Amino acid sequence: MRMYDLIMKKRNGGVLSREEIDYMVAAYTAGKIPDYQMSAMMMAIYFRGMDPEETAALTMAMARSGDMMDLSAIEGVKVDKHSTGGVGDKTSIALTPMVAACGVKIAKMSGRGLGHTGGTIDKLESFAGFTTEISAGHFIRQVNEIGVSIMGQTADIAPADKKLYALRDVTATVDNMSLIASSIMSKKLASGADAIVLDVKTGSGAFMKSEQDAFALAREMVTLGNTAGKKTVAVVSDMDQPLGRAVGNALEVKEAVAALRGEGPEDFAKLCRTLGTYMLIVGGAAGDEEEAERKLDRVIADGSALRKLAAFVEAQGGDANAVYDTSLLPQADIVEDVGSLTEGYVAHIDCDEIGICSLLLGGGRETKESAIDLSVGLVLHKKVGDHVKAGETLATLHANDRARLEAAKERFLRAWHFSDTATAPQTLIKGVVSV
Amino acid sequence: MRMYDLIMKKRNGGVLSREEIDYMVAAYTAGKIPDYQMSAMMMAIYFRGMDPEETAALTMAMARSGDMMDLSAIEGVKVDKHSTGGVGDKTSIALTPMVAACGVKIAKMSGRGLGHTGGTIDKLESFAGFTTEISAGHFIRQVNEIGVSIMGQTADIAPADKKLYALRDVTATVDNMSLIASSIMSKKLASGADAIVLDVKTGSGAFMKSEQDAFALAREMVTLGNTAGKKTVAVVSDMDQPLGRAVGNALEVKEAVAALRGEGPEDFAKLCRTLGTYMLIVGGAAGDEEEAERKLDRVIADGSALRKLAAFVEAQGGDANAVYDTSLLPQADIVEDVGSLTEGYVAHIDCDEIGICSLLLGGGRETKESAIDLSVGLVLHKKVGDHVKAGETLATLHANDRARLEAAKERFLRAWHFSDTATAPQTLIKGVVSV
Repeated sequence: MRMYDLIMKKRNGGVLSREEIDYMVAAYTAGKIPDYQMSAMMMAIYFRGMDPEETAALTMAMARSGDMMDLSAIEGVKVDKHSTGGVGDKTSIALTPMVAACGVKIAKMSGRGLGHTGGTIDKLESFAGFTTEISAGHFIRQVNEIGVSIMGQTADIAPADKKLYALRDVTATVDNMSLIASSIMSKKLASGADAIVLDVKTGSGAFMKSEQDAFALAREMVTLGNTAGKKTVAVVSDMDQPLGRAVGNALEVKEAVAALRGEGPEDFAKLCRTLGTYMLIVGGAAGDEEEAERKLDRVIADGSALRKLAAFVEAQGGDANAVYDTSLLPQADIVEDVGSLTEGYVAHIDCDEIGICSLLLGGGRETKESAIDLSVGLVLHKKVGDHVKAGETLATLHANDRARLEAAKERFLRAWHFSDTATAPQTLIKGVVSV
Repeated sequence: MRMYDLIMKKRNGGVLSREEIDYMVAAYTAGKIPDYQMSAMMMAIYFRGMDPEETAALTMAMARSGDMMDLSAIEGVKVDKHSTGGVGDKTSIALTPMVAACGVKIAKMSGRGLGHTGGTIDKLESFAGFTTEISAGHFIRQVNEIGVSIMGQTADIAPADKKLYALRDVTATVDNMSLIASSIMSKKLASGADAIVLDVKTGSGAFMKSEQDAFALAREMVTLGNTAGKKTVAVVSDMDQPLGRAVGNALEVKEAVAALRGEGPEDFAKLCRTLGTYMLIVGGAAGDEEEAERKLDRVIADGSALRKLAAFVEAQGGDANAVYDTSLLPQADIVEDVGSLTEGYVAHIDCDEIGICSLLLGGGRETKESAIDLSVGLVLHKKVGDHVKAGETLATLHANDRARLEAAKERFLRAWHFSDTATAPQTLIKGVVSV
């Protein structure tokens, strides 16, 4: 088999067989196919697309390119959760203890943040001492004992995807639905869970700007998951403005803790409840939506979800006291309100720009090597649909550096767009894809 | 400027500016843009195409990526000729002395053969001692003195094209009209001639299998040449069967010499006369087709074209006696006729296959490093449209190795296709493109 012939076949609109895709992924991962041939192939796929069989074959070939986690030592149904990412997305921190408190096993791998969207691991490290660098043995034991663990993604999970994604990232071949879906799902399938709930974001702060694309990606991934024998459900949710009100590592943890006390912002609480519902259903802990919601409401009301977070943090070396007293989380020196320059109804907030403000304050990584300041970020006081008077506070910025604060403030104000007439608040849940 | 943005622009159907193309070609040639980005760009161009301005900009950027030959020291109009290549294409060997004998200056760069199509330089080396490794000074002096010189293409001519072509060759991005045209024309424009006559081949033995594609390429190249201020004419000619009757280095030289004596095969003589006509016209040595043909006929009839070949061969160190006595050219040990297995009219000859027979006999290069046997090859006795009886000779094979001869013979016979009913001979000249 020659890569040249495969490129030619795809370029001319042909369908690659499973054997051809297996060869291509294995040889590329082994360094036997050069980057310049693979990038030509990726561009040909961008134009010609891949059918469902090709997409499934690529996904499985990448999943099998490294270690396939064996979670059979964990009793019961293991459920994984994945978000396509966004600004202020602290969902996993509140959601996983909620679901675990309802009796579903959560064995999850997470990544760090890069650019203006944060990573769950970074956020969790706001708990002093918390680590996700745990062994597979620790991971499995912890899930069996307390029902939840989050482990850093090791290099051995889907190395083909890692190499291929890095290439696509510099050759303008990222945004093809089949390639995006197979990239995400290859890692999920290699991670060994039995069922997967996906949070597919859409809007100005999401990778999928249009709802149509988000639903297409959701369908593609749900199909891939089910084809591989994993119960898979996708929720398509809004990311046209930041989720909740907090953006920044420790600030988001604080908001997640508030949500577990039943005091979180309404949209964030609703997203946790929706995703949690499907996690309970695919995890076999609830027969239908109603039962799932009742159970989720109960673990919030009786404090067991909050205690589950504390147990989880403690099991991975973190200071669990901060769960009950969030003033123990990292705090920024400068806390300053930013007032609106104009009066009106909030029509739109440039979501990516808010993420970049947090990055400017020091809360994100510009390159893989950057150190991040866990304490900085911002808390929104207003969201789309709200009325604002001139001078009224739009957000509180948390910073440790006056110059960074000023730069962030200027950019922050430019991200807001007002209307003279009342605007409708945004719909959070756009839909659910389950077949 | 970032290559990533240029790939994205082209991928999305945008038009690259001259500045963007200049940057891309210069940075790629300098090794500052990696192959994997350029191959993604080439595939995007394959799908999106390039408009005439982009194609012209790419051509000029590649032409300027190395040395631009300065032929101003040669008096008069310098005319170059280029063929897109085919089997039995010995045209330059007869054509350039014919045209030079009519007073047009020929300053031509040629390449060696690779695969089943031969190169003019290899063929000319059938004259013992002949070399194309001459200095620019020698080249210019010779053109001034005898009117014709053929120089080996130096590495400094259009290095961007060389690097890009090698990449396209392994990434299935060769066959795009704009890329093919710019590759050929960048070298021609860097070679410094004032006017260019192109021989665009079409048919089973040509790169352009369909006439439609051949004309499209011809128009693209003529436009590029004229845009760059060079009078350019393209003749689209048949390569659905070998040109003339001889295939193989010394055998083709012999046929070229015969043509200069007025004894060449009809199709080959006609192609030389047609291309020669336009070379005289763009070179200012004839006002119209009729005058050009009269002049060309005269230099054949009075022997001056043949003497011009002898002078040319001698000026580049070759044994000019072989022009007058072709038995001095390399001769093969085994000369054997191959008879037809069936009776019928020749309906089709797989042109590429005949080229491969010559390669099998040792007359071509399989890799850049291969040594070639100048004496071997074959001479066809029949061509498309001819009637053949069973056992009648189809061709005479010239070989130096019995095993190679047998392998070539078997393959040779499979290349012939017969019909019970009379078939029409093929039209040699498909058309002329001059605007």
